[in-house]
Amino acid sequence: MNLRRNSNSSLPHPKKAVSKFASTMLPLSLLRHDLLLRRRLLYLLHHRSTFSTTTRSASSALRIPLSHPAYIVWSANTSLGKTVVSTGLAYSFLISSPSKFLYLKPLQTGFPSDSDSRFVLSKISTLCSRRCEEGHSLSLLASNSVLRSSVSAAKSLLGSGFEPKKCEYGLCDLEFYHEKRVVNEGSKTSELVCQTLYAWEEAVSPHLAAEREAGLVEDVAVVDMLGKCLNIGFEGDAPRERMGVFGLIETAGGVASPGPSGSLQCDLYRPLRLPGILVGDGRLGGISATISAYESLKLRGYDVVAVVFEDHGLANETPLMLYLRDRVPVLVLPTIPQDPSNDLIQWFVDSGDVFNSLKEIMLSAYSERIKKLNSMPKKAGDIFWWPFTQHKLILEETVTVIDSRCGENFAVFKGQSNEFITQQFDACASWWTQGPDAALQTELARDMGYAAARFGHVMFPENVYEPALECAEILLDSVGKGWASRAYFSDNGSTAIEIALKMAFRRYSCDHGILQDFHENNTTERRIELMVLALRGSYHGDTLGAMEAQAPSSYTGFLQQPWYTGRGLFLDPPTVFMSDSMWNLSLPRGLPSNFLKLEDTSFRSRDEIFDRRRDQTDIAGIYSLHIKQQLLRHSEMEGLNYIGALIIEPVIQGAGGMHMVDPLFQRVLVNECRSLKIPIIFDEVFTGFWRLGVETAAKLLGCLPDIACFGKLMTGGILPLAATLATDTVFDSFIGDSKLKALLHGHSYSGHAMGCTAAAASMKWFGNPQTNPNVNSEGRLLRELWDMELVQQISSHPSVKRVVALGTLCAIELRADGSNVGYASLYAGALIQKLREDGVYLRPLGNVIYLMCGPCTLPEICREQLIKLRRRLEELNQVSE
Amino acid sequence: MNLRRNSNSSLPHPKKAVSKFASTMLPLSLLRHDLLLRRRLLYLLHHRSTFSTTTRSASSALRIPLSHPAYIVWSANTSLGKTVVSTGLAYSFLISSPSKFLYLKPLQTGFPSDSDSRFVLSKISTLCSRRCEEGHSLSLLASNSVLRSSVSAAKSLLGSGFEPKKCEYGLCDLEFYHEKRVVNEGSKTSELVCQTLYAWEEAVSPHLAAEREAGLVEDVAVVDMLGKCLNIGFEGDAPRERMGVFGLIETAGGVASPGPSGSLQCDLYRPLRLPGILVGDGRLGGISATISAYESLKLRGYDVVAVVFEDHGLANETPLMLYLRDRVPVLVLPTIPQDPSNDLIQWFVDSGDVFNSLKEIMLSAYSERIKKLNSMPKKAGDIFWWPFTQHKLILEETVTVIDSRCGENFAVFKGQSNEFITQQFDACASWWTQGPDAALQTELARDMGYAAARFGHVMFPENVYEPALECAEILLDSVGKGWASRAYFSDNGSTAIEIALKMAFRRYSCDHGILQDFHENNTTERRIELMVLALRGSYHGDTLGAMEAQAPSSYTGFLQQPWYTGRGLFLDPPTVFMSDSMWNLSLPRGLPSNFLKLEDTSFRSRDEIFDRRRDQTDIAGIYSLHIKQQLLRHSEMEGLNYIGALIIEPVIQGAGGMHMVDPLFQRVLVNECRSLKIPIIFDEVFTGFWRLGVETAAKLLGCLPDIACFGKLMTGGILPLAATLATDTVFDSFIGDSKLKALLHGHSYSGHAMGCTAAAASMKWFGNPQTNPNVNSEGRLLRELWDMELVQQISSHPSVKRVVALGTLCAIELRADGSNVGYASLYAGALIQKLREDGVYLRPLGNVIYLMCGPCTLPEICREQLIKLRRRLEELNQVSE
Repeated sequence: MNLRRNSNSSLPHPKKAVSKFASTMLPLSLLRHDLLLRRRLLYLLHHRSTFSTTTRSASSALRIPLSHPAYIVWSANTSLGKTVVSTGLAYSFLISSPSKFLYLKPLQTGFPSDSDSRFVLSKISTLCSRRCEEGHSLSLLASNSVLRSSVSAAKSLLGSGFEPKKCEYGLCDLEFYHEKRVVNEGSKTSELVCQTLYAWEEAVSPHLAAEREAGLVEDVAVVDMLGKCLNIGFEGDAPRERMGVFGLIETAGGVASPGPSGSLQCDLYRPLRLPGILVGDGRLGGISATISAYESLKLRGYDVVAVVFEDHGLANETPLMLYLRDRVPVLVLPTIPQDPSNDLIQWFVDSGDVFNSLKEIMLSAYSERIKKLNSMPKKAGDIFWWPFTQHKLILEETVTVIDSRCGENFAVFKGQSNEFITQQFDACASWWTQGPDAALQTELARDMGYAAARFGHVMFPENVYEPALECAEILLDSVGKGWASRAYFSDNGSTAIEIALKMAFRRYSCDHGILQDFHENNTTERRIELMVLALRGSYHGDTLGAMEAQAPSSYTGFLQQPWYTGRGLFLDPPTVFMSDSMWNLSLPRGLPSNFLKLEDTSFRSRDEIFDRRRDQTDIAGIYSLHIKQQLLRHSEMEGLNYIGALIIEPVIQGAGGMHMVDPLFQRVLVNECRSLKIPIIFDEVFTGFWRLGVETAAKLLGCLPDIACFGKLMTGGILPLAATLATDTVFDSFIGDSKLKALLHGHSYSGHAMGCTAAAASMKWFGNPQTNPNVNSEGRLLRELWDMELVQQISSHPSVKRVVALGTLCAIELRADGSNVGYASLYAGALIQKLREDGVYLRPLGNVIYLMCGPCTLPEICREQLIKLRRRLEELNQVSE
Repeated sequence: MNLRRNSNSSLPHPKKAVSKFASTMLPLSLLRHDLLLRRRLLYLLHHRSTFSTTTRSASSALRIPLSHPAYIVWSANTSLGKTVVSTGLAYSFLISSPSKFLYLKPLQTGFPSDSDSRFVLSKISTLCSRRCEEGHSLSLLASNSVLRSSVSAAKSLLGSGFEPKKCEYGLCDLEFYHEKRVVNEGSKTSELVCQTLYAWEEAVSPHLAAEREAGLVEDVAVVDMLGKCLNIGFEGDAPRERMGVFGLIETAGGVASPGPSGSLQCDLYRPLRLPGILVGDGRLGGISATISAYESLKLRGYDVVAVVFEDHGLANETPLMLYLRDRVPVLVLPTIPQDPSNDLIQWFVDSGDVFNSLKEIMLSAYSERIKKLNSMPKKAGDIFWWPFTQHKLILEETVTVIDSRCGENFAVFKGQSNEFITQQFDACASWWTQGPDAALQTELARDMGYAAARFGHVMFPENVYEPALECAEILLDSVGKGWASRAYFSDNGSTAIEIALKMAFRRYSCDHGILQDFHENNTTERRIELMVLALRGSYHGDTLGAMEAQAPSSYTGFLQQPWYTGRGLFLDPPTVFMSDSMWNLSLPRGLPSNFLKLEDTSFRSRDEIFDRRRDQTDIAGIYSLHIKQQLLRHSEMEGLNYIGALIIEPVIQGAGGMHMVDPLFQRVLVNECRSLKIPIIFDEVFTGFWRLGVETAAKLLGCLPDIACFGKLMTGGILPLAATLATDTVFDSFIGDSKLKALLHGHSYSGHAMGCTAAAASMKWFGNPQTNPNVNSEGRLLRELWDMELVQQISSHPSVKRVVALGTLCAIELRADGSNVGYASLYAGALIQKLREDGVYLRPLGNVIYLMCGPCTLPEICREQLIKLRRRLEELNQVSE
């Protein structure tokens, strides 16, 4: 027996792993299930933020190797034989050809009297020795190591004389290493590497053991350590051919048993999303236990490639196979002898066929997965028709394969020579839809399952069902509070806008006697045209009706919109932005700026821009006069082309280039229109639900609309749903005796239960300080997410023209070089490419790049992205100089 | 002891219950999980169809009483103390005030040595006697009965001399009744009614016991019987005040343990969707088992109001409460004595406080539920803005409260004096979106949970992820087979149509030199107008672009569509329909019909209409000539207003009134346009995916489009997603060096993972004979769903003008009485009202009423709805005569 302290540098150094977790991109919010353990968490969080001044380079980001198969062994309950299955698999694998088997036990309690990694080592050694004795050619180097443990577990293992040296949160570097050799001359050597990552002494659930032994470890550290062990184990010392290495991670207890932080293990390991096998239950009641465990795994987005369980004579496989509809194989192991003196060796030999089958299933599922991942970019290029994409410019190698999402992060497949999956922060918030952190995503997944099972979809008009009612109530009580009394559901921002236009025009027609004209004189219809008043640079969706409300641009020509005419009066808005650390106001041509005071056009802070005292400044008067003049000129020139609605994106014009419009200008505009009885539409599809740091951008403007449109983030970013809210006055203009006076616009899935369920859950989550650490106690405001010092530094960078940081948005316009048209957008392209390498997924908006997080994203995580951005800006600048 | 055979007529008569299940509306497909047991099922099915010639009246439909609280007791596993919890609850309830407690055990195995209902009876009797002895005022009448059992169980109970008389599928009417009295003079009598519904002898899972003892029972019979017991138990002999009665249904084993048919119990009881409590597991591993069981219940749409478990000293409540985020209370019971001689009486007394709390939680959750259900119609009327609804005409009492959906059925809350939930067949398929039966709904619920957990939503353009790729592949390989090579995703039919129009116009512009004109002469833009060729009566969606493609109607006036101009040449189509049992062709004005032969305009069967030999008839020539003339006249009159696209709903015009257009006419139209290089768009949003009995209506027409739009049923009816498919030629017209040449139309949730997952699963399910019993083995055609004899009878009814039965659609136009305008639609309203009372939820389409089922709905179920419709037609006719 070979028992020694080990300093093998190929093992991940626990100390290093721990010091690294501080800046990891894994959302800490995975832990957020845990409310009672919050105090402990706050302690960790505090420590975490002290670490996070250094950034993690891309290479140290969580990287899940795919060069060889790696599986998680889950179980329907404790004591169903996970370790026995692991051992059987290891044996089947090691004797089939010279190879390496990596067995990882991340969490071990009851240590050292219980040690699953020691069990595997011992049984495999015995099995191999016996095989050698039987004359088979076999050479095995088997080792077992234990990396970290609680102090009490360490003392039990190494004697009470053990002096803990390297410890953090009560977990010590153990560096226990134990090796065995089975040799039969003349054959190549196989290798069994068993590792226990964290061990505690008490034979209870890890969360209890961790608490009782004061040996704490954060989820992200477990995942990080596991990733490292897997990477090191798969790299090994020498290159090995594919399929020669196999990794197996054995969980503790059942699929939803808590890990040391209290997070459920199925949540804890989710960032890895390794495929798994499920050890089921062959006893009475075991069908139910196995199915429920399987469903918990599916509800976390895991793939399960096989179910295996010990036979108890009840033929549980039959109903399990029926349930799984033959899509997942079910294997049955012979009954395990209960006699404690039985060393199971004969049982392993007898079970060889089952384990061989299981191994083959796992190997072939692995091959399938790799094949699929590699084939996806080409297939996508062949059959997808991506929106807003010139397919000719897309090369197969630039297509991103997204294997999954976990909170704010994509898990992205990187093919080429050495396959792996890595994480990218979804900084485009997938077209500005995203809000969930990992905890909310899990919550929404269960809600989606429930809503589909309870409702699927049910007819909306003239009916009522809980999710639609709850969603409408929350909408009116949050973003509609104080003004809206009706909620109209549709599917996306574009349709919400078309509905809003119909509402506004009807209200306008009622107020201005147009409807009466119709009744008296049918010919009026052809003469009157209703138009919108809108701001240049605004965008309200891609359907024709929505497009008509935006100013002509390269997107509205005959080539794109054969029917577009542009039914609006489009004003140039004044904008505000940060440049050289200062906020500045930029007035469009046509607005007199020569006699303005500096304090009217320059601001020390963003708050000054929103300050209501600006209503009393000269600039407010200038705005008012300008708007009046424009409206007058329009009515003089356009005759019966009445302006029947004002439509604006409050504060930020999104697709138009992330421009921040002077809120004072929009406020004056709203007031002018209101005095003329022109209905006011706020397009909050982009700005709503905390996108700008407040529940609704109307709060920033300090004035209310008659109609407002919401979408995108409303469902938390899980599926499409939109709502148009309206006042009673607007609603009343559709009331009458005839159905033909009603609003005759609907979509098949109006008010669908899935979307309403997701929206209700997300809106509640975002606004609740108990679930969203960013929201202040009154649920009114998000804390500042972007580090102002970094933002100012970036705004002072020579390549940067302007910056807008507000709420979850941080947008940066790159300076277009006068002598080199298109330079800025090329530069943006290069920057984005580099940042993707750093694990930040951005998409350009012309020469504007932006980072966008969710309402719950921790400022530390935002900071990491900003730092990466700043570094790449500097680098590129040096190269281009 | 009082043991006797009982003939109490207030107990549901098992024989009656069984003979009724034949015509129930519960989808038999609940059983479909069970593939290996299919043979048994087929046997039952066969018997079922022989029963189903009689219809079930509305009063015998599944009716879930809400007059008193009723709960299901679920458990995380077997042997966790469900019966002990039931007993404790019963005791707490019975001693609080004179009242009635109904304990139902639907499935009992190990009988008679095990009998949970006997356990409850015995413990409650002892507890109450003891309480009397202690001087409390109490009078109790307690009974236990066993309704049906296998022959062997019956013999064990009643002696081997028992002669089974009334038996069906090996289950005998047992009519075992046993009564106990505990009396303490001077107090009112409480009542405990314990009932075991079905019992088997072997102590194994019900599916095994049922098989081994040849005592079979179908899911629908269990649910039916349970509903009856609940209704009878709640009605009782005398009126009782609310809260005086309490019903508890105890399941067998774990939440997902199979019932006698092999269906999981959580699926089996789903049509009732009673709220539940979950008996959790306090042991090591119990956190995981409890959470997983809870998730399996959520994945079936159940509400769980409390979790309760026996303490094992592991403080499992802490992580459970964290997981449940305090939304579901967790209660801990004292450890149950293990000593078999302990009669638990003292334990029940000691646990009194916990059971009282549990009872209070259940009572208050019940009150909340009732309050909510009753308040919903008013709230809905106050804050919803329903599409296509004149709110002034909606009375609060006509608002339907939909509590849930199970397959094709709504569970509808009926308020008024005696609250209950009943079922309505969703015959409008919720605006034609629905496809799932109960089995597919469960499947989709799990898929939705998985997709949300794995992906949520991720950015589509330039990316690839499994669900989008799989969905696109299936689309191209099914409805796009043979012609389409690209899939463009959007959110609904309207947007899919707008995208299709943009595609078609671009292709047309390329083919007809218009793009070239632009490059050479920018002024062309303002002169050329592209229009569609479309059919009058067609409908393509409510967004402005989609509306432009439909002919002027009362929906397109200034009041509804301020910007509508109607950019099309709209032809009147010839239609076909059944009247007086014959199919007839009706030609529009302008088409010469005088010299047509009778065989050209009258058909004995629907197949004749689709017969390709009609291409050789005179009528084909007439169509061709007519279309050519119209096109010529248009080009002469309209100059630069080119026709750039043909858009049609193939075969059936849906929203326009369920008109069947002569497929020959559409085929000729397509051919004419193709010869003129006018791109052809099929709007299959309504007709796609088996709606008309074939995967795509193009198959019925026998010609292919260049572009086709799909939506509605595509996701199985669970959430919005649409796709526009196109040929390579169409795609190529967007290829170029500039992004501005690409198709710049996209929505936030383009290709969302949730929708694509649902679509992929549904498309596979519908087309697979293993999951869809209606599809033929080649997956090409649905069997006839509507009984042709009944359809013919209806078509001959004097009030019926025409009938169109095709695929999942059976539409009936009521005859408008010339002397009474609007009579038909009033008549339709009355008919629909009556049918809703019969459990069929229809919505009118003017004077057209229609029944619509899903692609998997069994013909027996369709037949039931048809019979109800025919009966109501006859009734109303008699009244109006």
